[in-house]
Amino acid sequence: MITRTLVKQLAALPDGPVSVAGWVETVRDQKKVQFVILRDESGAVQLVNPATRELEEGADAAASARLALTEQISELGHGTFVRVTGELKHDERVKLGGLEVKIGSLEVVAEALETPIAADSSLDKRMDWRFLDLRHPKQNLIFRIQTTFLHALRTYWVEHDFVEIQTPKLMASASESRAELFELGYFEGKAYLAQSPQFFKQMAQPAGLGRVFEVGPAFRADPSFTSRHATEFTSIDAEMSWIDSHEDVMKMHEELLVAGFTAVREKHGAEIEELFGLEITVPTTPFPRIPLAEAKQIVAEHGYVVPRADADMDPEGERRISEYVKETYGHEFVFLTDYASSIRPFYHMRHEGDSNLTNSYDLIYNGVEISTGAQREHRIDVLVEQAKEKGLDPEELEFYLDFFRYGVPPHGGFGMGLARVLMLMLHEHSIRETTYLFRGPTRLLP
Amino acid sequence: MITRTLVKQLAALPDGPVSVAGWVETVRDQKKVQFVILRDESGAVQLVNPATRELEEGADAAASARLALTEQISELGHGTFVRVTGELKHDERVKLGGLEVKIGSLEVVAEALETPIAADSSLDKRMDWRFLDLRHPKQNLIFRIQTTFLHALRTYWVEHDFVEIQTPKLMASASESRAELFELGYFEGKAYLAQSPQFFKQMAQPAGLGRVFEVGPAFRADPSFTSRHATEFTSIDAEMSWIDSHEDVMKMHEELLVAGFTAVREKHGAEIEELFGLEITVPTTPFPRIPLAEAKQIVAEHGYVVPRADADMDPEGERRISEYVKETYGHEFVFLTDYASSIRPFYHMRHEGDSNLTNSYDLIYNGVEISTGAQREHRIDVLVEQAKEKGLDPEELEFYLDFFRYGVPPHGGFGMGLARVLMLMLHEHSIRETTYLFRGPTRLLP
Repeated sequence: MITRTLVKQLAALPDGPVSVAGWVETVRDQKKVQFVILRDESGAVQLVNPATRELEEGADAAASARLALTEQISELGHGTFVRVTGELKHDERVKLGGLEVKIGSLEVVAEALETPIAADSSLDKRMDWRFLDLRHPKQNLIFRIQTTFLHALRTYWVEHDFVEIQTPKLMASASESRAELFELGYFEGKAYLAQSPQFFKQMAQPAGLGRVFEVGPAFRADPSFTSRHATEFTSIDAEMSWIDSHEDVMKMHEELLVAGFTAVREKHGAEIEELFGLEITVPTTPFPRIPLAEAKQIVAEHGYVVPRADADMDPEGERRISEYVKETYGHEFVFLTDYASSIRPFYHMRHEGDSNLTNSYDLIYNGVEISTGAQREHRIDVLVEQAKEKGLDPEELEFYLDFFRYGVPPHGGFGMGLARVLMLMLHEHSIRETTYLFRGPTRLLP
Repeated sequence: MITRTLVKQLAALPDGPVSVAGWVETVRDQKKVQFVILRDESGAVQLVNPATRELEEGADAAASARLALTEQISELGHGTFVRVTGELKHDERVKLGGLEVKIGSLEVVAEALETPIAADSSLDKRMDWRFLDLRHPKQNLIFRIQTTFLHALRTYWVEHDFVEIQTPKLMASASESRAELFELGYFEGKAYLAQSPQFFKQMAQPAGLGRVFEVGPAFRADPSFTSRHATEFTSIDAEMSWIDSHEDVMKMHEELLVAGFTAVREKHGAEIEELFGLEITVPTTPFPRIPLAEAKQIVAEHGYVVPRADADMDPEGERRISEYVKETYGHEFVFLTDYASSIRPFYHMRHEGDSNLTNSYDLIYNGVEISTGAQREHRIDVLVEQAKEKGLDPEELEFYLDFFRYGVPPHGGFGMGLARVLMLMLHEHSIRETTYLFRGPTRLLP
């Protein structure tokens, strides 16, 4: 490796020689002294150089070198990647971290064109130049948070004996609905992109894997342009055997989120406070649970009648029930439970004794739905009936229905959108900010 | 959750009442006693029931229940999911784990059709019924090993400050080559499925993320039917900034594999020995490194002249150099280095002073290539030249070339096929055995 010290490690070092490497964030080229803010993946540091603007008569080689360095710094453009060797000096008067590096030598590793984006560029323009946009400390932090969050989730699962699966994204038929399905040519035939790992994570149940998880892409040919929808997104999925009801899924789900939020708070709490101006709260368990019908009643009583003909909530209703829960229980999360069968997929198990309701839930976080979970129907005859009732052709579902004909235990699980969780955790306004490279109806680049 | 004890936990329990749940593997229905082998995701246990074949005159309700239980067990089919409550008894005469459970009550949770596959079914037929095939302890173990392996890799990365990224699988143009590219309709236009995360993981370098990793699907419209190729596979990718050469990538790569193999050996070593009859060896570092040209010479000297017009190896050559390395250095891995520019993509950096060779490597494990790694060319002018030389149109690569125009540090990384690593680790003969649901030119189901 090229010898360098990460900027974040400088604070712990004594004064003395160091090498750092990163990109030039700003240059302040004053007459007598030059300041360069150098940033790397871990932070920013001030570099300083006493300027040598001209040579006196009879100047020696060292003076020539100082002049050359001064001129080199004057020409440095924003975004240029450089390696710098110099002297670290702790000095509490320096605002940026209380230290600076006096430049000994500077090597330009890669020059840079002038950046086409600024702090006030539109979101769309920033997306055009995402690889530059990501250089900002906030964006950088988002993906470090994501790393920590996902690792905590996976660690929870591994410790609870879940098996990681990678389900195929190429399918012979739809996984959820015929709408919003991407189709592609597949040798002599056709294939479809998985809208979710639903069928394949359920397959792990007759396969006897017990408990499984997956973090992977899902695809929806969704033409909408909201702040919460994408044509490709990272789906966090889990499925487990031998549950009694969706209550067991919710219990695992909330424990999992506690693990994720605890890790994020511990590792990044201070940085998040500094850059996002907010404190990460680890949610308490159990999360509040409200049956959907009751939730609709509550928001109606508070002045908002959900303008839908069906039994479902709408985004405004989710925002309001979330507000209500926050005020009443001081909680950022709420499980809305027992959705009507009419607005749930055929594979959700229905209440014993009331087939109008399902053993299912949506999880709302800070006003937005981030996840749907349910107990699945595992009785083949009931499942076929429910598929027919939804207007599906059981013949097209044969490969899926077969999973249930050879034995399957009671099971359930959830799917959760990663970018939504991060968006809401950090009070961002769009999943575009919390997706590495967003994909939408008019965005396939970069 | 439905109350049950995992089979693997029984050994540690005292004699007494227990509940277990799983599927029926076999029933031995003897005249005086019935034995059921029940399997769950953690192992198998023998259940026993003293048969009551007929009722004596004046028999009580308890006797009737015993008769009913006996008849219920006689009718149990393979694959039926059941819950059993009974008495655990440790008895070293019982071959299966030295314990058995005397059945008190048995509830059939889901019945099962007769399994269409047997131990000697063809691989293709087993793939047709993958959800039943996976019930076998060997297959189950493969995915537990995979879970442990991936978690160890990610833990290594997290501890080394790598950032996890999820790169898009939908692209506006090819990521590697125009051949083997899946195309799909995308609203009014077209999109392509990523053949690798290559361009997007490199994008993390100008984005200043420093070190990144990803485990995700990659797609190749590859019409071949070998044991090592699939149209969709899980790719393990890493990319890091500020390297001196591909040597830095190899160093990270071998440390990573040591972490993965150590975790697998520790957690599953005994089971692997039992079920696969082999011992997992943790490789020693450094792995042997042999320049490709030298490797070809070595296999030629040992009687095999690689029958290719270009500078490349072939699978037989890889097998033979691997054999040679095993005999000579006692090592299962070998890095073949310094591939000719003519057989490497345009973005591999070439040797300073000899543009015929690249700063690249392939990693061979037990005779098969599992990975390609390289230092990337980060100098925009050289990169454009190399693209042109390969017959590529720089205009089609604009979005990628832009990454380099705004500054990028020296960097490199690798991509590695997960299913191949597991296949070779477990001495399996096809990646079909180590892929959850294999996808090939004629396989999209289940």
